[in-house]
Amino acid sequence: MKQRKIILSEKEIPEKWYNIVADMPNKPLPPLHPATKEPIGPDALAPLFPMELIKQEVTPDKWVEIPDEVRNIYSIWRPTPLYRAYGLEKALDTPAKIYYKYEGTSPSGSHKPNTSVPQAYYNKQEGIKRITTETGAGQWGSALAFACNHFDIQCEVYMVKLSYEHKPYRKIMMNTWGAKVFPSPSNATEIGRKILAKNPDTTGSLGIAISEAVGEAAANADTKYALGSVLNHVKLHQTIIGQEAVAQMAKAGDMPDIVIAPFGGGSNFAGLAFPFLRLNFEEGRNIRCIASEPTSCPKLTRGVFRYDYGDSVGMTPLLPMYTLGHNFVPAPIHAGGLRYHGAGVIVSQLLKDKLIEAVAHDNIEVFEAGVTFARAEGIIPAPEANHGIATAIAEAKKCKEEGVSKTILFNLCGHGNFDMKAYEDYFAGNIVKHELTKEEINASLAQLDTPEIAI
Amino acid sequence: MKQRKIILSEKEIPEKWYNIVADMPNKPLPPLHPATKEPIGPDALAPLFPMELIKQEVTPDKWVEIPDEVRNIYSIWRPTPLYRAYGLEKALDTPAKIYYKYEGTSPSGSHKPNTSVPQAYYNKQEGIKRITTETGAGQWGSALAFACNHFDIQCEVYMVKLSYEHKPYRKIMMNTWGAKVFPSPSNATEIGRKILAKNPDTTGSLGIAISEAVGEAAANADTKYALGSVLNHVKLHQTIIGQEAVAQMAKAGDMPDIVIAPFGGGSNFAGLAFPFLRLNFEEGRNIRCIASEPTSCPKLTRGVFRYDYGDSVGMTPLLPMYTLGHNFVPAPIHAGGLRYHGAGVIVSQLLKDKLIEAVAHDNIEVFEAGVTFARAEGIIPAPEANHGIATAIAEAKKCKEEGVSKTILFNLCGHGNFDMKAYEDYFAGNIVKHELTKEEINASLAQLDTPEIAI
Repeated sequence: MKQRKIILSEKEIPEKWYNIVADMPNKPLPPLHPATKEPIGPDALAPLFPMELIKQEVTPDKWVEIPDEVRNIYSIWRPTPLYRAYGLEKALDTPAKIYYKYEGTSPSGSHKPNTSVPQAYYNKQEGIKRITTETGAGQWGSALAFACNHFDIQCEVYMVKLSYEHKPYRKIMMNTWGAKVFPSPSNATEIGRKILAKNPDTTGSLGIAISEAVGEAAANADTKYALGSVLNHVKLHQTIIGQEAVAQMAKAGDMPDIVIAPFGGGSNFAGLAFPFLRLNFEEGRNIRCIASEPTSCPKLTRGVFRYDYGDSVGMTPLLPMYTLGHNFVPAPIHAGGLRYHGAGVIVSQLLKDKLIEAVAHDNIEVFEAGVTFARAEGIIPAPEANHGIATAIAEAKKCKEEGVSKTILFNLCGHGNFDMKAYEDYFAGNIVKHELTKEEINASLAQLDTPEIAI
Repeated sequence: MKQRKIILSEKEIPEKWYNIVADMPNKPLPPLHPATKEPIGPDALAPLFPMELIKQEVTPDKWVEIPDEVRNIYSIWRPTPLYRAYGLEKALDTPAKIYYKYEGTSPSGSHKPNTSVPQAYYNKQEGIKRITTETGAGQWGSALAFACNHFDIQCEVYMVKLSYEHKPYRKIMMNTWGAKVFPSPSNATEIGRKILAKNPDTTGSLGIAISEAVGEAAANADTKYALGSVLNHVKLHQTIIGQEAVAQMAKAGDMPDIVIAPFGGGSNFAGLAFPFLRLNFEEGRNIRCIASEPTSCPKLTRGVFRYDYGDSVGMTPLLPMYTLGHNFVPAPIHAGGLRYHGAGVIVSQLLKDKLIEAVAHDNIEVFEAGVTFARAEGIIPAPEANHGIATAIAEAKKCKEEGVSKTILFNLCGHGNFDMKAYEDYFAGNIVKHELTKEEINASLAQLDTPEIAI
């Protein structure tokens, strides 16, 4: 019997997160104040985040210690297994060796609790009573509800209306962990009411939901905000994925040539890829790291590198990012977690410096990939995860065409138990391609009046 | 940091299933022919099951080898983790030590693939092209769909109508693995059409669904039937759970005083408990094994020990079992997997011989237990699993009252990702108690004209 899973013991849960900024040849440009357009310091973030997270956001230190209490909660599902995908290799008849890291074993079903747990922990340390957030597919909201329940903090979630309607069970899951959930745009906030007045039929977007959650936190002293991706400290926390994977690949006596992860705001990708990029920096390795995004929201492959807002109404600091423009409303694809207009700062700088790569897949291709995977490996993936699978399959097919064996590792970031409606739509032929025209992208970018970056 | 999970490596997946019949002081009585009421041999099962499973059904051997190909598929999710429930112990403020074995890590989310995989394997070995089955909550249907997909066998599932309506996503999950799903009673079979004609509004039952699936298999030579519980070979396959748990408890340097599992037809309970009962038989230990059933379907605590049919229309052999009568239609509780009128033969004999115990919990108590567990431990359980949790909590509270520390182990047989509707109903106050009156039970039993057993 061939070994399928490479597992680690609880003792092998990493004790530190890895901060890639320390190793980057070009450090990210500073955030700018949304009004003055001047560089801002960490203090500007104080209304939204506890000080310890702000420190992590800007730290130059290469390693950040993981508190014991966080590792203790991590141990509910971590370390997660690394799989050799024998079934998929056989189905593709490829000479490639394919591995995947499976993050769907967490109670909320994705990689998101890797950061929700430390975020709730640091808020608790600073006496915060309530945390607001947005959620796309519901993965992040569930993860934060799970973490807040553990630390007895009230959790309030603004859920992109499209997902709220597609995924009622995600809402109940959050309720079960004690969280309140609003469809976004909602009547619960001023920002939501304004947007609804203008466009009552909007399906919402992550940008709008962020605006609502940030607005609530900014207006209340006992309330902070939590973000599930994009920011540096979120990426930092997710590096626990890749650190485990580095140890597991070593245990397997192997090392990936290609590392792949789905791309929404960047934390999924950062989580798996950064610890392998560390090996590139430290050991001169040449591991290709590929971010996989939807063709309906292609900021990395078709956006511009420019300062832009993190939200849709211009409340957040301006960040130097690959963006489609903060007013861009992506098509209503099922991979709600990837419907975000911009890319996190660190990932954007790495892409600009050609230290990582990006590809885009259309909606039909990713569901074909997901069903191929489910039938070959047994696990039904989340629609977001299907993007990484599509890239892995494309690379494995290339290996077959070229007659070479490469080692491919991808992040199976979550299971699809709450996404059955998406598969139903796929089987019914109701999934369509969303290829943006040059005109559509230009129209969105033309609205940008944010500072450009000299390249 | 205290160790939370006790894990095993793939190499430690057991190589043999444990057959408790070899150790039982009183062997189960023989099954009887449904028409002649005479004892039948294994051949009578040949229209429904492949020969290798029939052999396992009647084998006196204490150990049955697990084929390598089955262990290979088991390795997708096995060995499963054993948890120390520190969070629950703290929430209950109990001196008891509580452990649980978590079977929700399988792709279909419960312990059911432990038997669906070997069943599909042996059918494939004998050239079978199609397998029919019934499913209650959808757990078993999903598990069989998963297994049949792996061996390229057509899977057809008759799903209890109540669950079909409550759990549309279970249906799509089965479709994703390539299975066909019918609401039962269905118009696809003669038996289904007859029942619908009599009672068009019936919510169905496991007994009815079994009748439909068995009828199809009996009528087609290339088709066999698969059962998810009750039968000896199903219990046999599930003993992999308890064997792992015995090894894990030893690793933890501990041994349970009490072993608890939910009870539908018996395979969940058998799976965890039989390998601990083996220790009672072999080493003279005194481990209490408690089966936990709903008050709405209390065959163990309020049924009679008597020959009865496994299905609702009298097609199957007569089995010596604790039963509420094969016409009994349980209340529409969310724990669909426990809505079965009878108990498997081996478990019935063990209960009659007082080698195991049984308790019943009402619907509100089990959901209270489930939410307590979800908030204390992080994992949201399936409604079936909540019954085992309710018993564990009751025993842990008893420890507190009596000021003694006992070690309690229960089977967390599945996650609740597909059962959010049940939690929604619970939070909305729409879950009701279902306590049967003496008259209701007597009325169901009075219809029985099957052979009695002299006690």
